[in-house]
Amino acid sequence: MRKMVLSILVDNTSGVLNRIASLFTRRAYNIDSLTVGETEDPKLSRMTIAVRGDDLVLDQIVKQINKLVDVREIVELKPSDSVIRELVLVKVKVGKEERQQVKTITEIFRCKIVDFTSESLMIELAGAPTKIDAFLEMLKDYKIDEIVRTGMTGLLRGSADKVVLETIDVEGR
Amino acid sequence: MRKMVLSILVDNTSGVLNRIASLFTRRAYNIDSLTVGETEDPKLSRMTIAVRGDDLVLDQIVKQINKLVDVREIVELKPSDSVIRELVLVKVKVGKEERQQVKTITEIFRCKIVDFTSESLMIELAGAPTKIDAFLEMLKDYKIDEIVRTGMTGLLRGSADKVVLETIDVEGR
Repeated sequence: MRKMVLSILVDNTSGVLNRIASLFTRRAYNIDSLTVGETEDPKLSRMTIAVRGDDLVLDQIVKQINKLVDVREIVELKPSDSVIRELVLVKVKVGKEERQQVKTITEIFRCKIVDFTSESLMIELAGAPTKIDAFLEMLKDYKIDEIVRTGMTGLLRGSADKVVLETIDVEGR
Repeated sequence: MRKMVLSILVDNTSGVLNRIASLFTRRAYNIDSLTVGETEDPKLSRMTIAVRGDDLVLDQIVKQINKLVDVREIVELKPSDSVIRELVLVKVKVGKEERQQVKTITEIFRCKIVDFTSESLMIELAGAPTKIDAFLEMLKDYKIDEIVRTGMTGLLRGSADKVVLETIDVEGR
């Protein structure tokens, strides 16, 4: 069992997400998290997929993703040479007494409080996934109403050698 | 043309992403951004989809998403009563002279510098999508190497009435 974070640069077309997702579905592989957002080029999107699975099967999936015509580049983000980040929003139900306790936790983790009512606090935290896990663990003693996590995103560090899993000549297509 | 941010609570199964994505693909609708991450319940994931399109077609898509057996809840996040956030990582090529200029911009936007080499800086910023757009606009004068955005994620504010687009009786399935 291997954990893998893939960063995939794709053409901004309507079918690409579907084509990539179906490569995982076909093997009943569940994607742990997925983000798709804009890049420096409006014609391209960058997708970050976190997935767990068998080494051999993951290698096969990577090869098949590479064959898709809308895929420009695929890179594995290894923890040793990448910055991997995630964003979480948490809505916690708090009365007057718990409010100060929860605020203390948010200060320690340097979160932002982004919404506040007499009964609830909404907290924003960005950071490494392990930091977010630790923060959510601390909140377990309180009544969590809703959590949403973006899923992982990341880039290779400036010092890392970019090992593109397969290079495709864009002009030559 | 309407912009819509949908927050969809789904069962953590391998096909659900595919089934939802294909509803957009079938109409050649391009998803602007998409995030899928864990929630307060390990059996459920929360998906946030930003999409633009015709009012009528979007309504149809929402209805069809609702009919999927792995969809528990679907809510539209309207800017007026939601907190919507995004995370961006940017790698900028900077020499000694530009380094201070870029650092000043990161201070104004309260970013974090998360990686640093003699030739580059990597910057992390979390915030409202408009803030991230403004920040990236300011960086346009510099040599941007790579950008990755998680895409939007969000939650309804504590004071907002939750208008579930259709409620499904989970027990009754």
